Amino acid sequence: MAKLTKRSQDYSQWYIDIVTRAEMADYAPVKGCMVIRPWGYAIWERMVRALDDMFKATGHSNAYFPLLIPQSFLQKEAEHVEGFAPECAVVTHGGGKELEEPLVIRPTSETIIWAMYKKWIQSWRDLPLLLNQWANVVRWEMRTRLFLRTAEFLWQEGHTAHATAQEAVEEAERMLGVYRNFAEQWMAMPILAGRKSEGQKFPGAVTTYTIEALMQDGKALQAGTSHYLGQNFAKAFDVQFQNRDKQLEYVYATSWGVSTRLIGALVMVHSDDAGLVLPPRLAPLEVVIVPILKADADNAGIVTAAYRIAEPLDEKVRLRVDNRDNVSPGWKFNEWELKGVPIRLELGPKDLAENKVVLVRRDTGEKMPISQDEVVFKVPEILEEIQASLYKKAKERLEAGCHQAGSYDEFKKVLDEKGGFVFAPWCGSRECEARISDETKATIRLVPDGAEECPACMRCGKGPAKRVPFAVAY
Amino acid sequence: MAKLTKRSQDYSQWYIDIVTRAEMADYAPVKGCMVIRPWGYAIWERMVRALDDMFKATGHSNAYFPLLIPQSFLQKEAEHVEGFAPECAVVTHGGGKELEEPLVIRPTSETIIWAMYKKWIQSWRDLPLLLNQWANVVRWEMRTRLFLRTAEFLWQEGHTAHATAQEAVEEAERMLGVYRNFAEQWMAMPILAGRKSEGQKFPGAVTTYTIEALMQDGKALQAGTSHYLGQNFAKAFDVQFQNRDKQLEYVYATSWGVSTRLIGALVMVHSDDAGLVLPPRLAPLEVVIVPILKADADNAGIVTAAYRIAEPLDEKVRLRVDNRDNVSPGWKFNEWELKGVPIRLELGPKDLAENKVVLVRRDTGEKMPISQDEVVFKVPEILEEIQASLYKKAKERLEAGCHQAGSYDEFKKVLDEKGGFVFAPWCGSRECEARISDETKATIRLVPDGAEECPACMRCGKGPAKRVPFAVAY
Repeated sequence: MAKLTKRSQDYSQWYIDIVTRAEMADYAPVKGCMVIRPWGYAIWERMVRALDDMFKATGHSNAYFPLLIPQSFLQKEAEHVEGFAPECAVVTHGGGKELEEPLVIRPTSETIIWAMYKKWIQSWRDLPLLLNQWANVVRWEMRTRLFLRTAEFLWQEGHTAHATAQEAVEEAERMLGVYRNFAEQWMAMPILAGRKSEGQKFPGAVTTYTIEALMQDGKALQAGTSHYLGQNFAKAFDVQFQNRDKQLEYVYATSWGVSTRLIGALVMVHSDDAGLVLPPRLAPLEVVIVPILKADADNAGIVTAAYRIAEPLDEKVRLRVDNRDNVSPGWKFNEWELKGVPIRLELGPKDLAENKVVLVRRDTGEKMPISQDEVVFKVPEILEEIQASLYKKAKERLEAGCHQAGSYDEFKKVLDEKGGFVFAPWCGSRECEARISDETKATIRLVPDGAEECPACMRCGKGPAKRVPFAVAY
Repeated sequence: MAKLTKRSQDYSQWYIDIVTRAEMADYAPVKGCMVIRPWGYAIWERMVRALDDMFKATGHSNAYFPLLIPQSFLQKEAEHVEGFAPECAVVTHGGGKELEEPLVIRPTSETIIWAMYKKWIQSWRDLPLLLNQWANVVRWEMRTRLFLRTAEFLWQEGHTAHATAQEAVEEAERMLGVYRNFAEQWMAMPILAGRKSEGQKFPGAVTTYTIEALMQDGKALQAGTSHYLGQNFAKAFDVQFQNRDKQLEYVYATSWGVSTRLIGALVMVHSDDAGLVLPPRLAPLEVVIVPILKADADNAGIVTAAYRIAEPLDEKVRLRVDNRDNVSPGWKFNEWELKGVPIRLELGPKDLAENKVVLVRRDTGEKMPISQDEVVFKVPEILEEIQASLYKKAKERLEAGCHQAGSYDEFKKVLDEKGGFVFAPWCGSRECEARISDETKATIRLVPDGAEECPACMRCGKGPAKRVPFAVAY
């Protein structure tokens, strides 16, 4: 197997090498589109299952809204159309005829969903309405990268309707909390959380909440957003309800989403020069057992022993016995390292004689002989250790990647030399935000709750200012 | 609540009433598209889970291929383009510009998938390749009906690649078997199975296998198809592999799919004039517990008892305690009957005093008082009885709906008076098939394995002929 590009050599190419060589995704014939291959899709299935359980535990139901949206719907909310119209794929013909009104493929579903909510919501008794959908969306992108930015991607989008502003704000914050828990506990990915600046918020939102992660190359990645939409979409689609005082009032809304982009984040947070490193909770396989087969030898005893060891473990973890006889053990080791399986159990004739297996951790490379009788409880323990250890390492990297700057010169120097999140004072104006971004390529990733007050903005010198994290982002 | 249309009055309207009033689906703003509401989607989630487990148990992995397909791809297989091009939705603009080549929204994914298989398959070692995807597809339809026929629908499509024709045929037959098991064991829906005639097969297939169900109005419904595609798509996309003898050979293929249409079939097979009747294995809720609350009374004891009864049952079945206090018990009974929940447990003050609950079966309306101590094992038993009983009733209806005819006159008479599947002799020609269909609206639903040989076709009088089931179909 040809070696992967090293991170130190070309980080971007290293990322693409892993995604394609581990058979997670491939380029589709249509520019900007991707094919998600079984190894990548199995990770997505794990993500979907975990998130879906969390959505249901917080009272949400799934539904499915149409792919195609009348172009006029998008135009009903002024900021929304400005944000999304330039990215739309437009259907002009159907069934061999030109359509009376062009249809756009959903770039996000607020407009079609609020057109339906108009039919379904009349009274406070119909609220809250807590729906989610798992769907594909299309946003025409010029510069694409597998998983991170593609013209079509898979995601979930929650869309909720509430009787009061307070309840909707609480919902938006609750769902950001769900994303935070998912990132930390499942992806082993620490994050910063806060609100987007006016310049960075979702088109049509009053407030956008975000979680932001740090990749190994010092760039930030927006991993999930939750929006308090106020009454903007209710007004655009005239959705009023009779409140408990029998008054008509516009409904309050939220929307929130995460996408297959998270798979890209997962790759970039944990992986190394040998390939993918997966946190056990999201790994399609947690354990691979490799019996060391010898050419021209009777391997039956080894294979039988491998299945005997696998049997009680199979009920506890996702595992595979790799008994292929057309590739060498070394080839298998490389393949499963490339694919990021957290634990490999090697079983050779000597191990068999000594009632042992050799356990190899993907994250540290550590090899430890363990008794075959211990496998069934040792392996789940070590999987938990790996999950915790990946989070700890990523957390240390995030902390080491957070820097402070006072002046604009210092800011540019730190950003250039160290990357990561550079916390610096900003006056809150869109003008300064845009200038800093133009001049440094760094954007304000979020405004933390309780951000430190500073006397003056690093760009315009005016005060009061707040200390916020800037970063170059994916 | 206004009453549903009765089946005897207007079967079509009865169906639409159930789907909309039970909040399974609604009409979308774009003609021919639907919104799947939470109650309908929850049934689909149950179907997906069951089928997905069966696909994985037979060695398949999930993947995801792009929504958008270059128009030229569709044209590479002659029958395929003829079958699907007239139904396509076409994207002509993206990102504000006219596209160089129009893209179609996938009506099915053979072409895009085989374009990828060309990249992935080189050797017999790469085979078999057993992939499935869960996706939305669009087929521009003029006459649509919720779930049964919509412009956009959700489905799964399996696409497999094999080294030999025999292996591919076995795969196509195996997957028809999976569909058959799913229909019978999960949907409690008996079916006829066989091959499609040349006139009815999938555009691009060598053989299409089908399962066909019978609705209560005597119409047939195609519930799932599996196709042996031979080397047609491999040749269209030039996908060759090196076989074990180091010769280049075209790959053999299958594809197979079922869709949200199954939800429509489920409604029409079991439901009655009071609403939806669901087989327990696919019901979003299997049991609803309704405490009978009295206005102006202390209901705390009853509500507490309802939750106490629910607790041990909750681990075994999907249940809900309906403790809403803004609607009457009678209103709740109607609502849960309309939504098809298999078992209702009523708990009033008298029941409480006697340590009883009243169990009501949705399928038969039967009411039986049972001891509260028995609930935890009686309820799962009765759910199994309901599942078996629904299948038995539907099976009897299918058998009673199968008729025989010898002459063409008799055929038309039986079809007109009784409906259902009318088995009659056919010579095998596409010409007779088309004429019979034009003259009677009935189509050949399938050719059974080992169909009875007859001396003469009922239409042209020529022999030899086979006895095949005709029906008017959805």
